[in-house]
Amino acid sequence: MKRIVTISREYGSGGRDIAKLTAEKLGYQFYDQAIISTVAEATGLNPEYIKNHGESARGSYFFNYGYMGMGFNSFSLPDFLWQKQRELILYLAQTGNCVIVGRCSDYILRERDDCLNVFIHGDLESRKKRAVEVYGDPVKNIEKHLRDKDKKRKTHYRYYTDQIWGNASNYHLTLDSSEFGIEGCADIITYLAGK
Amino acid sequence: MKRIVTISREYGSGGRDIAKLTAEKLGYQFYDQAIISTVAEATGLNPEYIKNHGESARGSYFFNYGYMGMGFNSFSLPDFLWQKQRELILYLAQTGNCVIVGRCSDYILRERDDCLNVFIHGDLESRKKRAVEVYGDPVKNIEKHLRDKDKKRKTHYRYYTDQIWGNASNYHLTLDSSEFGIEGCADIITYLAGK
Repeated sequence: MKRIVTISREYGSGGRDIAKLTAEKLGYQFYDQAIISTVAEATGLNPEYIKNHGESARGSYFFNYGYMGMGFNSFSLPDFLWQKQRELILYLAQTGNCVIVGRCSDYILRERDDCLNVFIHGDLESRKKRAVEVYGDPVKNIEKHLRDKDKKRKTHYRYYTDQIWGNASNYHLTLDSSEFGIEGCADIITYLAGK
Repeated sequence: MKRIVTISREYGSGGRDIAKLTAEKLGYQFYDQAIISTVAEATGLNPEYIKNHGESARGSYFFNYGYMGMGFNSFSLPDFLWQKQRELILYLAQTGNCVIVGRCSDYILRERDDCLNVFIHGDLESRKKRAVEVYGDPVKNIEKHLRDKDKKRKTHYRYYTDQIWGNASNYHLTLDSSEFGIEGCADIITYLAGK
């Protein structure tokens, strides 16, 4: 049996909903929004900043690196956020059974053997449809929007883990949600986590 | 229900055994060695050549490309083998329910919607152990041997499909055989193919 499930996901694949449903089916805690609010409370950072930068590529060069050339410490705000999120994820994993969405949690918890790491992806059409209909993203340039979102997650993951996001070898299981559906994916993960 | 299952795999992950077991469980034809012997019979190519080049990177520059500079046709022996294997896989997929091992069959059959594409991988230690104990590979330089094998498959896949081998998005499902075991993986695939 796996006490912890991490679910990484392409934008629009429904990975977050799959994670939520899996947590319900397993009777586990579900950590997504709670990570944002806890980190916000502990650090004083704006929740919106955490939401936008907690698992996306680092922001402008100037604010992240610019001051390095000015003789200040090289520890940037994204690095600070990464460290605080990392500490929280390590703590949450110790406290009880849970499903954690994204935030390089597969990598952060890689030393644990009670952790099932999952990646959810989907075909472009299904993801576009979901982004527009469920998340309310504008139809205009939706394909570019999806690619940008994924690119940012990929870059962020690469920067902090030195691994390739979406590469099968990083996960115990990857699933195409456009093939198996939201409920279907949650059922598979629940079954494998409970074994 | 899926009529066809394709199983791509890292060297030493037991993907071939998983494919064989899945075919038994589903009552499907199993195509691996049969592809080699059929292509050998149809083309006159040496089975050993097909085994070594049917899903591995192209051979020496001279034999593959060298004669292009001599004014001959640019169609090389690896390209010829690729085409013959491709024709056979397309034909086999039409004739009946089957499980096909490797050979870019996921890509070759990508237009079909009755096909479940699976990738099997495993952690390095499990794969080394399997390569030595099950395949009888020499212990010396086993890690390099594994990496070379995978690199050749990756290069071959990239050359003929323009896709990244082992990237989750290419497959409906990827599984870590060192986590779920040979029988466990076969059970999951059988369940999902039969749905």
